[in-house]
Amino acid sequence: MRNVTKDNITDVFSSYFGDDTDPRVKEVLVALARHIHDFTRETKLTHDEWRKGLEFLEWAGRITDPERNEFVLLSDVLGLSSLVDMQNSNPEATSSSVLGPFHVSNPPALEVGGDMKRDFEGEVLLVHGYVRDTNGDPIPNATIDIWQTAPNGLYSSQDPDQDIHSFHGLMTADEEGRYTFTTIRPVCYTVPSDGPVGEILNAAGRHPWRPSHLHYIVSAPGYRTLVTEVFPSDDPYLDQDTVFGVRDDLVMTYVPQPAGSFPDGYKLSGKVNDAYSRVDFDLILAKQ
Amino acid sequence: MRNVTKDNITDVFSSYFGDDTDPRVKEVLVALARHIHDFTRETKLTHDEWRKGLEFLEWAGRITDPERNEFVLLSDVLGLSSLVDMQNSNPEATSSSVLGPFHVSNPPALEVGGDMKRDFEGEVLLVHGYVRDTNGDPIPNATIDIWQTAPNGLYSSQDPDQDIHSFHGLMTADEEGRYTFTTIRPVCYTVPSDGPVGEILNAAGRHPWRPSHLHYIVSAPGYRTLVTEVFPSDDPYLDQDTVFGVRDDLVMTYVPQPAGSFPDGYKLSGKVNDAYSRVDFDLILAKQ
Repeated sequence: MRNVTKDNITDVFSSYFGDDTDPRVKEVLVALARHIHDFTRETKLTHDEWRKGLEFLEWAGRITDPERNEFVLLSDVLGLSSLVDMQNSNPEATSSSVLGPFHVSNPPALEVGGDMKRDFEGEVLLVHGYVRDTNGDPIPNATIDIWQTAPNGLYSSQDPDQDIHSFHGLMTADEEGRYTFTTIRPVCYTVPSDGPVGEILNAAGRHPWRPSHLHYIVSAPGYRTLVTEVFPSDDPYLDQDTVFGVRDDLVMTYVPQPAGSFPDGYKLSGKVNDAYSRVDFDLILAKQ
Repeated sequence: MRNVTKDNITDVFSSYFGDDTDPRVKEVLVALARHIHDFTRETKLTHDEWRKGLEFLEWAGRITDPERNEFVLLSDVLGLSSLVDMQNSNPEATSSSVLGPFHVSNPPALEVGGDMKRDFEGEVLLVHGYVRDTNGDPIPNATIDIWQTAPNGLYSSQDPDQDIHSFHGLMTADEEGRYTFTTIRPVCYTVPSDGPVGEILNAAGRHPWRPSHLHYIVSAPGYRTLVTEVFPSDDPYLDQDTVFGVRDDLVMTYVPQPAGSFPDGYKLSGKVNDAYSRVDFDLILAKQ
């Protein structure tokens, strides 16, 4: 097309594809260009705004390194990560929710009933549940990768004062599908806001907070791997998670338990006679 | 909103804005999120495709430096740059067209009738025209910044064998609005295709070629600055410019001229008795 205009440019873009292009590549790229073009026309985007957008991407590129990925964070705060999670979830299984950037490889083994908090101090939380299939039947011996923030609001990879494996654990559920462990109740925290994504949040009058949560990756042979989180029902940021991760079925009551009521079969030491909280959270996996 | 779903996520995104957010910031960000969400739902984007998109942006970030901006190139091959140009053009003025990444600062002065090719060899092109307002009246003494590829298809900033100012010139049009100079006819060339944008072109079965052109930035007090290009009507890539820069009013016939017909008043030396080509291209500026 020799005379490209603002009205025909999407058609011209489509006409450039080779005849033997993979149909899915063409579908995704044409949809991407169409939405970029429609966005540009609808907003009557100016040259200054276009340049600002490009400078934003350049800045995100400069600040991204193996420890920090500003593009993932951008996807998170725009709701893209959560939308991809939601539309690839099985509605009969536990909802999936953002993986986030703080998972570490080779987490240490955590036995059923183990203590993930190790030497950290704070309010003890007993986490308990079953891994089940969509019929409600237990799945034996599923692998559960668990991680969370330390009481200071930082994940181990953000905090030079923590061992890289602190508040990370890899558990094999028992024959009945049961998993359980003790930890310190996680706290709400902010996503990194000192880069270009922070500038977007600031311009939008948005806070950078996430409600507190425990992360899970649950896998078992023959089932779709589940990446999810569990949130306490009394968290002040539950209605305004800056990365859009909260779903109804992931919100659980953390039930206060009186002093002296701690059950047997746990590795918890020291605080075993204090009051604590308990959350029950079952993990429902869909077949592959 | 506590229960974010794939259907309400755009509304939740909108609800997060602070009350005193700049209305234009909100308009642009909500439109951006809405189109990203619609794109994701329409294509049923998978986790693998989402990750591939993020890896693409990370790669573009790594390859971008002061000499090469892969995000601008991405904007170019998606048609975004041209669309922003077109919708910010005045329809009564000469169409604007992509600036591209090869303009250099402090171009050397080029007098009216000067020779921009200096010692380079090739087919001589005489470029001639007037700077006019939208009524057709000449604008005296406009500033015209001109640049193009060398005969090897490279701009000076891409080519260690060229002086950084080769094939760049800054002219002041005369009292009658006339500008003219001699050069070597520019050649068609490819955009950089060894990075992530090249991978997109390859996956789409698209070539990386641009039709040959001369770049202009034209400015005069009281008028909107014009960034544009002129293309020859016989270029093989006129219908498939990979950055969508061609507009009808920017395509001109490069008219062959017989040997011995070269006019007076030019600095051209050596080739003055050979055949050459001539293009007439007027530059119409809109009032500010």
